[in-house]
Amino acid sequence: MTDRVERLLEQLAQGERGALARSITLLESRRPHDDDERVALLQGCDTILSNHTRPARRLAFTGPPGVGKSSLINWYGLDLVESGHRVAVLAIDPSSEQTGGSILGDKTRMPELSREANAFIRPSPSSGHLGGVAEATREAVLVCEAAGFDRIIIETVGVGQSEYRVSRLVDAVVFLTMAGSGDGLQGIKRGILESVDIVAVNKADGAGQQPALDHARELKSALGLLRGHDAPECITTSAMTREGLTQLSVAVDALLHSREKEGVLDSRRKRQRKEWFEEALIQLVERRLRSRPEWTDHHDALEESVCSGELTPYAAARAFVDRMGF
Amino acid sequence: MTDRVERLLEQLAQGERGALARSITLLESRRPHDDDERVALLQGCDTILSNHTRPARRLAFTGPPGVGKSSLINWYGLDLVESGHRVAVLAIDPSSEQTGGSILGDKTRMPELSREANAFIRPSPSSGHLGGVAEATREAVLVCEAAGFDRIIIETVGVGQSEYRVSRLVDAVVFLTMAGSGDGLQGIKRGILESVDIVAVNKADGAGQQPALDHARELKSALGLLRGHDAPECITTSAMTREGLTQLSVAVDALLHSREKEGVLDSRRKRQRKEWFEEALIQLVERRLRSRPEWTDHHDALEESVCSGELTPYAAARAFVDRMGF
Repeated sequence: MTDRVERLLEQLAQGERGALARSITLLESRRPHDDDERVALLQGCDTILSNHTRPARRLAFTGPPGVGKSSLINWYGLDLVESGHRVAVLAIDPSSEQTGGSILGDKTRMPELSREANAFIRPSPSSGHLGGVAEATREAVLVCEAAGFDRIIIETVGVGQSEYRVSRLVDAVVFLTMAGSGDGLQGIKRGILESVDIVAVNKADGAGQQPALDHARELKSALGLLRGHDAPECITTSAMTREGLTQLSVAVDALLHSREKEGVLDSRRKRQRKEWFEEALIQLVERRLRSRPEWTDHHDALEESVCSGELTPYAAARAFVDRMGF
Repeated sequence: MTDRVERLLEQLAQGERGALARSITLLESRRPHDDDERVALLQGCDTILSNHTRPARRLAFTGPPGVGKSSLINWYGLDLVESGHRVAVLAIDPSSEQTGGSILGDKTRMPELSREANAFIRPSPSSGHLGGVAEATREAVLVCEAAGFDRIIIETVGVGQSEYRVSRLVDAVVFLTMAGSGDGLQGIKRGILESVDIVAVNKADGAGQQPALDHARELKSALGLLRGHDAPECITTSAMTREGLTQLSVAVDALLHSREKEGVLDSRRKRQRKEWFEEALIQLVERRLRSRPEWTDHHDALEESVCSGELTPYAAARAFVDRMGF
């Protein structure tokens, strides 16, 4: 273990937010020569966590753009901090894949929460095509927990696919929607239908209150038909009046409690560790193979045939794996 | 080349829709023993296409759920058919990743278009985490073109990330939105900002007409600020009154024409073939490696350590690649 990692782990164990930020930066670095440090850091976090007595809980807040996820997390997180929790928010912005930067990825979206000593807010890049959303975030969750944050909230934009993806990282998924957002019955995509645990119809304030209540009732009955007794709870919330926040807390806590009692939380975490292993494995294999000189040689020649139109991309890929001896 | 592929290619060259459907099914099969046939089929399609004189054009229609993509494609596609084109629609439903099925993936969403002899409509599953959206669809596009379809339309749900992904498969991206859908300035995510070529504010009919016009004007000025002279054209459309469809056609044709003249279309296609090669390559490597017996041996032992908590998933992955000798 390097000095840097040892120092980071010591500071993490003391809950230092600066060390947490630096650790996440190290994990986000995909440079091969940081590999040893990444492994040591993650293993060290696992060791720290094995001595924790208060288990951390992981939540996802997902929903379409503009539905008010950040504002609601701001107040929900503040409530958690006020009841003695330490809250880490990891905001994934999958829309920024191309440039790797986030348009709105700063703390000003959660002004009250970001001022709290027991809160940590971090935009999480979702780069790369290999399950990008999951990769860095998964590791960041672990480090947050090692730093003593016991409520981890992952914020992500979603229209179905992301709900499913993010559900593989957390203990429960809260889906935010609003009246008139076009996700009535048609919008209940399978991803949402199958992966979401609590539905909050947001912006239930002023003139929006009645439409929100109506929409929640409609969603409730539709989800009831589709998922039966396993249907997610539907509530209404407002970041403006802070109404519905208590109800949200109660719903989340009740869900987590019953999942824990039934052993669902435990089996879910185990499955998630397996998935993580599976994905890390493919990423590493790819990285190692790409660094071989014969990879580059075969690759460049075949790429030329693809560009000239001599070979279809698929045939070239096939020729490649044959030449590599796989 | 097997008899089956030879027959398929003959029928494809004659534009038979049944053969097209069967070919896509073959490509979607990820069974290793279909590999040879898939390569032969794709290579055969490339050969057919090298003799085509009328170049095909590829478009994506993307936007949030409920914005009316299918209805607009129905009429837009019908216009294309009436002007002598053969139109293939590949509908990707990324929200159905978990179960692999699509809730709305049938032809009843495009009733008029689906009755046309020169139209082909097909839901395209987006399974797997390895760039799933792209994989099967890319190959399907090629086969549609070999079957003489010269206008390929890919329909996909999007809130930023998908726009970018799908832009890598097509010549141009049309983004559908509607007034009051929450994608004002906040909703202009980077993916949309950077990957979209034409914006259509849909449902511009009845009481919705004025809000649509206002929204289009707002988007136009916002996109103008953000992208300058390269800003996408913003128009209003209605599948109900069919207003704006001519304008949409004109905008698409003008864009494709100027891209062709400037050589952008050609360089874009070349880049896309490279990306396809790159992705096919990783998929094949993974598939070949997984079928090795030593993969299974190492894998199962390490998975156990991950489940028991002895190793972090990342450390286990690292031990795995070391044991495999990479």
